[in-house]
Amino acid sequence: MSASDDTLARLAAVIASRRGGDPDKSYVARLFSKGPDAILKKVGEEATEVVMAGKDGVPERLTAEMADLWFHCLVALAQYGLEPADVLAELRRREGLSGLEEFALRKVKAREGGSA
Amino acid sequence: MSASDDTLARLAAVIASRRGGDPDKSYVARLFSKGPDAILKKVGEEATEVVMAGKDGVPERLTAEMADLWFHCLVALAQYGLEPADVLAELRRREGLSGLEEFALRKVKAREGGSA
Amino acid sequence: MSASDDTLARLAAVIASRRGGDPDKSYVARLFSKGPDAILKKVGEEATEVVMAGKDGVPERLTAEMADLWFHCLVALAQYGLEPADVLAELRRREGLSGLEEFALRKVKAREGGSA
Amino acid sequence: MSASDDTLARLAAVIASRRGGDPDKSYVARLFSKGPDAILKKVGEEATEVVMAGKDGVPERLTAEMADLWFHCLVALAQYGLEPADVLAELRRREGLSGLEEFALRKVKAREGGSA
Repeated sequence: MSASDDTLARLAAVIASRRGGDPDKSYVARLFSKGPDAILKKVGEEATEVVMAGKDGVPERLTAEMADLWFHCLVALAQYGLEPADVLAELRRREGLSGLEEFALRKVKAREGGSA
Repeated sequence: MSASDDTLARLAAVIASRRGGDPDKSYVARLFSKGPDAILKKVGEEATEVVMAGKDGVPERLTAEMADLWFHCLVALAQYGLEPADVLAELRRREGLSGLEEFALRKVKAREGGSA
Repeated sequence: MSASDDTLARLAAVIASRRGGDPDKSYVARLFSKGPDAILKKVGEEATEVVMAGKDGVPERLTAEMADLWFHCLVALAQYGLEPADVLAELRRREGLSGLEEFALRKVKAREGGSA
Repeated sequence: MSASDDTLARLAAVIASRRGGDPDKSYVARLFSKGPDAILKKVGEEATEVVMAGKDGVPERLTAEMADLWFHCLVALAQYGLEPADVLAELRRREGLSGLEEFALRKVKAREGGSA
């Protein structure tokens, strides 16, 4: 495992350890206690903030908002029993199968061929 | 860390190498050629798909949609001259400074104290 | 019914009439044929475009993107057997019950009191 | 049309009247005082909640979330000096020019022709 994958894995472990914890002491325990909808809503919210930071074009803000988004993605994965390693494996799998470019282009072409 | 070990760093390098490439041959070159708004829009779109996959509760679909979201996050970072390492460093920085939990709880409490 | 409610009602009627229509002739029939997820995804997409237009601060673009968002909201309502009149009635109901301001403030205060 | 008959126009007038009001007494005044980003963020948030309510398939919840989304759309329009009448006029204009269907299909075809 690499250093950057390691950051995500370590974070995911901290997050998983908060399930069932005290919602008054832990932000993550609080999110878990509110349930899946609250977690998914945060993913949507943070993505909107990434978009707004991108429009502002201030790299530091984009970095910070992206960190928020990834953090909540890890919480969402944990909610469904998944780990960042699963997502990274999927990214590598696509690359290994056929190249990421071809994968994405196939998807675009399929969409363009059949529908909106 | 070496680039070859690191899924996100390696992907980001591939993505960065597509800037200025042929939009007819590369999905990523095509996205870059369309400009920042097209890239940010994809981040919003893929986040919506993550939310929908979460609602469906099918782990394989959530993994796949999360992979799409992270992939487009890397394109967005590249658009603004950033790398996944910047985001990972920000996540580690928060952890190092004061604990991720406290960071997030402070943010929640600040919001709850002052405003909607 | 007022003139502006009428625009939405008339549009909704056109949209409803497209269910089961030819996906090659009608954009709306095409959306219906793709199913609820495709429709909800468009709501998420168009909301992202509204946010980006807002950041750009060009009123004409915001108007156009908002029209796209509302249009797809009407398709989403139709998908679930609802009409714009249902949403407008809900808005009026809140106003009638307790004033919109109080409604929203109560919601904010409930959120601030209990959780993130 | 008269303002008293028109749900959206009446709501928009109430919203506009809250600009510069007391953020402790009015939810809308509070949103305006926080600025455009806070308002746009709410549009993104409420759109995510519409998507989640659609996935749940409970019409009452979809109606309620759609009401929240439209309400915050009206706040966003007011922020930029626009009114719901502007959006409704744009929807009618498209219909009048060429039919909504053709408008949307042209847009889809243009996208499919040139790019992702």
